[in-house]
Amino acid sequence: MDYILKYKSVRQKTLDLSDHLNEEDMVVQPIEDVSPTKWHLGHTTWFFETFILLPHKKDFELFNANYPFLFNSYYESAGERILRATRGNLTQPYLNEIIRYREYIDSHMLEFLNSSAFKDEYQYMVEVGLNHEQQHQELLLTDIKYVLGHNPLFPTYQKNIIQINDFIKDESFSEIKEGVYFVGHQNDGFCYDNELGIHQIYLQSFKIRNSLITNREYLEFMNDGGYQKFHFWLSEGWDWVNKNNIQAPLYWNFSNKEWVYYTLNGLRPIDLDAPVSHISYFEADAFASWKGMRLPTEFEWEVAVKEIHKTIPENANFLDKNILMPVPAYKNNQLYGDVWEWTASSYLPYPYYKKADGALGEYNGKFMINQMVLRGGSVATPVSHIRSSYRNFFQTNKRWQFTGIRLVDYL
Amino acid sequence: MDYILKYKSVRQKTLDLSDHLNEEDMVVQPIEDVSPTKWHLGHTTWFFETFILLPHKKDFELFNANYPFLFNSYYESAGERILRATRGNLTQPYLNEIIRYREYIDSHMLEFLNSSAFKDEYQYMVEVGLNHEQQHQELLLTDIKYVLGHNPLFPTYQKNIIQINDFIKDESFSEIKEGVYFVGHQNDGFCYDNELGIHQIYLQSFKIRNSLITNREYLEFMNDGGYQKFHFWLSEGWDWVNKNNIQAPLYWNFSNKEWVYYTLNGLRPIDLDAPVSHISYFEADAFASWKGMRLPTEFEWEVAVKEIHKTIPENANFLDKNILMPVPAYKNNQLYGDVWEWTASSYLPYPYYKKADGALGEYNGKFMINQMVLRGGSVATPVSHIRSSYRNFFQTNKRWQFTGIRLVDYL
Amino acid sequence: MDYILKYKSVRQKTLDLSDHLNEEDMVVQPIEDVSPTKWHLGHTTWFFETFILLPHKKDFELFNANYPFLFNSYYESAGERILRATRGNLTQPYLNEIIRYREYIDSHMLEFLNSSAFKDEYQYMVEVGLNHEQQHQELLLTDIKYVLGHNPLFPTYQKNIIQINDFIKDESFSEIKEGVYFVGHQNDGFCYDNELGIHQIYLQSFKIRNSLITNREYLEFMNDGGYQKFHFWLSEGWDWVNKNNIQAPLYWNFSNKEWVYYTLNGLRPIDLDAPVSHISYFEADAFASWKGMRLPTEFEWEVAVKEIHKTIPENANFLDKNILMPVPAYKNNQLYGDVWEWTASSYLPYPYYKKADGALGEYNGKFMINQMVLRGGSVATPVSHIRSSYRNFFQTNKRWQFTGIRLVDYL
Amino acid sequence: MDYILKYKSVRQKTLDLSDHLNEEDMVVQPIEDVSPTKWHLGHTTWFFETFILLPHKKDFELFNANYPFLFNSYYESAGERILRATRGNLTQPYLNEIIRYREYIDSHMLEFLNSSAFKDEYQYMVEVGLNHEQQHQELLLTDIKYVLGHNPLFPTYQKNIIQINDFIKDESFSEIKEGVYFVGHQNDGFCYDNELGIHQIYLQSFKIRNSLITNREYLEFMNDGGYQKFHFWLSEGWDWVNKNNIQAPLYWNFSNKEWVYYTLNGLRPIDLDAPVSHISYFEADAFASWKGMRLPTEFEWEVAVKEIHKTIPENANFLDKNILMPVPAYKNNQLYGDVWEWTASSYLPYPYYKKADGALGEYNGKFMINQMVLRGGSVATPVSHIRSSYRNFFQTNKRWQFTGIRLVDYL
Repeated sequence: MDYILKYKSVRQKTLDLSDHLNEEDMVVQPIEDVSPTKWHLGHTTWFFETFILLPHKKDFELFNANYPFLFNSYYESAGERILRATRGNLTQPYLNEIIRYREYIDSHMLEFLNSSAFKDEYQYMVEVGLNHEQQHQELLLTDIKYVLGHNPLFPTYQKNIIQINDFIKDESFSEIKEGVYFVGHQNDGFCYDNELGIHQIYLQSFKIRNSLITNREYLEFMNDGGYQKFHFWLSEGWDWVNKNNIQAPLYWNFSNKEWVYYTLNGLRPIDLDAPVSHISYFEADAFASWKGMRLPTEFEWEVAVKEIHKTIPENANFLDKNILMPVPAYKNNQLYGDVWEWTASSYLPYPYYKKADGALGEYNGKFMINQMVLRGGSVATPVSHIRSSYRNFFQTNKRWQFTGIRLVDYL
Repeated sequence: MDYILKYKSVRQKTLDLSDHLNEEDMVVQPIEDVSPTKWHLGHTTWFFETFILLPHKKDFELFNANYPFLFNSYYESAGERILRATRGNLTQPYLNEIIRYREYIDSHMLEFLNSSAFKDEYQYMVEVGLNHEQQHQELLLTDIKYVLGHNPLFPTYQKNIIQINDFIKDESFSEIKEGVYFVGHQNDGFCYDNELGIHQIYLQSFKIRNSLITNREYLEFMNDGGYQKFHFWLSEGWDWVNKNNIQAPLYWNFSNKEWVYYTLNGLRPIDLDAPVSHISYFEADAFASWKGMRLPTEFEWEVAVKEIHKTIPENANFLDKNILMPVPAYKNNQLYGDVWEWTASSYLPYPYYKKADGALGEYNGKFMINQMVLRGGSVATPVSHIRSSYRNFFQTNKRWQFTGIRLVDYL
Repeated sequence: MDYILKYKSVRQKTLDLSDHLNEEDMVVQPIEDVSPTKWHLGHTTWFFETFILLPHKKDFELFNANYPFLFNSYYESAGERILRATRGNLTQPYLNEIIRYREYIDSHMLEFLNSSAFKDEYQYMVEVGLNHEQQHQELLLTDIKYVLGHNPLFPTYQKNIIQINDFIKDESFSEIKEGVYFVGHQNDGFCYDNELGIHQIYLQSFKIRNSLITNREYLEFMNDGGYQKFHFWLSEGWDWVNKNNIQAPLYWNFSNKEWVYYTLNGLRPIDLDAPVSHISYFEADAFASWKGMRLPTEFEWEVAVKEIHKTIPENANFLDKNILMPVPAYKNNQLYGDVWEWTASSYLPYPYYKKADGALGEYNGKFMINQMVLRGGSVATPVSHIRSSYRNFFQTNKRWQFTGIRLVDYL
Repeated sequence: MDYILKYKSVRQKTLDLSDHLNEEDMVVQPIEDVSPTKWHLGHTTWFFETFILLPHKKDFELFNANYPFLFNSYYESAGERILRATRGNLTQPYLNEIIRYREYIDSHMLEFLNSSAFKDEYQYMVEVGLNHEQQHQELLLTDIKYVLGHNPLFPTYQKNIIQINDFIKDESFSEIKEGVYFVGHQNDGFCYDNELGIHQIYLQSFKIRNSLITNREYLEFMNDGGYQKFHFWLSEGWDWVNKNNIQAPLYWNFSNKEWVYYTLNGLRPIDLDAPVSHISYFEADAFASWKGMRLPTEFEWEVAVKEIHKTIPENANFLDKNILMPVPAYKNNQLYGDVWEWTASSYLPYPYYKKADGALGEYNGKFMINQMVLRGGSVATPVSHIRSSYRNFFQTNKRWQFTGIRLVDYL
């Protein structure tokens, strides 16, 4: 029955997030990566319709025969769909139609989950659907941040200004010894196929910074000519910096002789003690190079986090805190939350990984190339969505997610 | 005082046109050419604010200091502005804010027009502002047609289905004799600078078709392999056809073994007796070549229309008829309305043309290259906006306007 | 029989022009516009093979069955061909093979021209072939100038440094009266179809500068901020300037505090008294706008040149002079030669123009869109190729030809 | 002293490879990846001039002050250079100048290597220079294959047709047990910094195919719809296939109802028993997916090859055999040679990797992103250049190298 509670709660959270917005905010797609809020609302609903109700619920009928074409994202197995770049042209269906679509599907889902027709073997797909929706909650926030943060009026998403007074400045490291370790998902809870299975890897001994790199440290890099000196940069990163004239993290603006940045709480002075965010892998790597250190591999991160935290710390800055911007560390145990941490690991399959048949096989496996793994979750991640074995992944030039830096070094 | 009436009437018409739409429809910009409805509402208002109120009305204050940056289109003289391609990212200001902007400017304008501070020398600029707004009424309609017509749901703009029963099928020609003729604007009414001044040109004798080319005739061209045979096409047109895989006019879809087209009145079977529309210059020229005839020069068109019509015929299909799609000819006098007619003339300055100083100089003159002249007005043109000397102009590959074909031949 | 002499002489001239080059210079294609010298040698030969020998000479056999595919330029009627942009990848056939190809075709052509099988009706096509080859002589020179002038070593094509001491500085104008004039080809000699037929046009009275605009005058425009002030420019030209960061004519380099330019005689200080060259239509038009004048229409140019010159002046700077760079005017009659003069006329068909059937129809007619007419010939044009009715044409952003400015104004 | 012999021998080999070509073949650059032969001859020479002679040899003077600008590839530390994409525009310096350049540098190098001024600490850089030249020998061959293989005449590079009669068809596997293994360079010989240092990794048990995948097997994949079924492909690979209309390996042509391929020995029927070559990582991965297996990681490959071969087998098909195309396996020990084998490992730094200071730091380290590792060497690799720890790397869409497939599976 907790499926039902979780279903209700996750579905409601998506609506809550969009409640901050006017219909007009929900339509546009300024770049291909950024989908309209309305589309997220429809697509997450289509997922349950397509992968649960349509194949399994007796006599279920599509809400609208055109919607699968509109709301399929990239599932070749699920048929034709609109070009990704045209999501932002769909002024119709209107928001109220999409809300009706959500209500229709929710009503059918709840009926189905409560019925005897719902078999245990369907549970995993429902879990996938809910985790999928949580991922889109994060995207909904980062996408709307892109829309509002590129508007010359810099409108706010919320006005929840947080003052953190009692943070601790901490640049200490934790040490991990050389040896064979287990990584991968290892308990009963839900996980994606890309976290399976638990397996052994060999690590050199290393130390890992307990806190994230702050805006203050990143500004030192900038002021030291970080963006102007080629030798800190990967060749492809250096091309990217020059071609796009990159001078600072995304959302930073130099205005009246000082740096400010756009946050979901509006345009604000840079908080120097908060973790740096909205940087590409190229920038994270260049910063590490400037600092004479490096980014952790995803295995180093996972081993370290398991050593340091038994569970996710109470004060970790996730979506549930509703702060929606990285803030200075309360304590030194900041290994979860605030920003996704770029790792030095490419997103590749674990040993024995098998791509599932059908649509699930398209969920993770087909993206395992030319992307880097990120770990730890961000201010836009629901805490119930994250775990130590969780593997997020993006291309090396992406900056619209809450992405930051943790450093390691060999001993 | 008729300025005031005209001002009210033109400004109201723009609102009337957007009344068919939901806020959500008004935000997006699927291609660079197509601006959001909201932007049209703001930009036409900015025009009066910037070129009348700000320089001339005492103590006038900007409605919002950010708006000039948002609503300037391409006037370098009027300062910095957003990139054209980003108009569709502006979810804010919301529609109701823009309506308030219109009300604020209208109130100031009416006060100013009624005051003694309003000098005769400002009249031309007010006329320009109103004609400018009428041009944007046409763009508003063609732009929203693009938005709705590319939505897989094919929503209607209005449901005003017109049945024309008593049309006349007429493929006759009128003849014009060789000689020197006057062209250009020649009476007291308003005109743009590009229509000045009246001057002599030399024409060969020719005959001009009294009716527009119909969908039936265009379909014959298509069925005869018109899009597959290079020798009908200009070289650049042939490249355009092949690169973009062009097979039919814009908005035509082949569905269930028949051609249908999207109109502002919804998706409908092709009306074979109606004039063909939404074709590029390349297509118009290829059709003429296939037919063994040619497109008229703008001078041939202007001389012929002055010979044939004393005034604009009552039944001409302009915006005021509210049909919003080309329809079969009632009578043979179809030289105005329905579709803009591509001419074989490049858009170049007339003799003695002088680009005005300041912003007015940017209105027409700077576009006089690599575009072709169109004549006659369309279903989206207000009848009070058109005249025999009116010169419209577009690039040779554009199809989102109501554009069609009239043919001429030498005798 | 003078066909035979002319055939030999034109064909030899092409070889003479390539004699300045090493095989290695003849292979490359740095931009799509610029074809390799080897390709010009082959293509001009293919023209005679394809349009004279193959259809008309009995038992003629292709030199090599692959060559039509390699050496056809854009004749859809003549079958498949390599993509234009890949001409520069063809390291083979080697130059000596192409020379053998020329010899083979020349031998057949001479045999054929001398034979009774050669009919009068073929003469026009032979004339076209020879004029075609002369056009490619001009292209061969402008193309190799592009290759050598973009090489950081700035190698010379020839070392024929010309000193002009006794030139006349002349900024006078000639006046032409308003009225109806004849334009178009009007004598028995060869002309292209785009110059036919002679017809009447109406001109306003105007005055035309007797000399071309010099580098000195153009430098004044540059020093007055010509490239920085939008109001001199067409909108499309202003975009072009900014997107390509245009600051000076092509081949100008600012080096050690002075402007120098690359010429076929090597890198040299700017000759301030020589006509400006290698500018786009956009630049020509902006200069005219800065000067408060305008470019002539092609009809104004043609009428003026016929009024002023009975025949082409002896001292006109054409290819036959072997100077290969524009030089200061000896006398004030500089209406021919030095540089092609951009006119304010779009390249469009004359009245009664009919595209020929077959390949000839692809020679001129299919390019009559989005190009501007140039008149007068350049340092790379054979004098026997030019005439008062000759219409050259290029897109408005092209600069690799010898292109310059003459101004006119209304009286 | 063996430096001197090796220096002479490697430098001579580069000249030998270019001896098959005419000067005209050596100039062009059809795509950015493919450099002209002349440029390879100059660039490898520049390497010794810049990194050995200029800093270390007393009174050494540059051969030509312009050459560093022309022949620097991507070394930011070594100053400005021509844009990579313009290498193919440099018709000058002519080949004979570049040969003179080589002679000048060789003469200085030999003098220096024989002198007491040559210190032990310079030896590594000389080794790097020679290995660098060997890498360019491979590139010279794959680049000229691209040039000749895209010429419609399909000219041969050599006519060395090899008939392999006594090959063994072998689809057996070798097994490797789970555990901790050492990888990385482990003896005294030369290696690049990216192979250091030797370190432990953990492997699952697996089996590895003793032979490479053949054209016969790849054709089965093609005939089974391999290029048409999305589920075999990575998402980015599927986009690549569709956007570029990929249907077969590079150099395959379907002609007269059979597949043929271009080889350096000319156009030939596909040898079904030879290893498939010229495929991208995307294709290698899709093939493995179709076969129900996977590509080895670079560590699996290295561990396996060390287990199976003590030394490189005598019959391995490397450059020294002068076959220049993959051929059927003589024996089952085909782990070296024929084709570079795509591995499932991203090109990333080994533990403790430190980018060297200066130019050497730009040799490998800055490319460690978004590329995959290849192992084993190809028909274009000198046997003295390869070793079990050697890491080659390319982007996932590259096909112009000799690249193929070996498979592994878990036990």
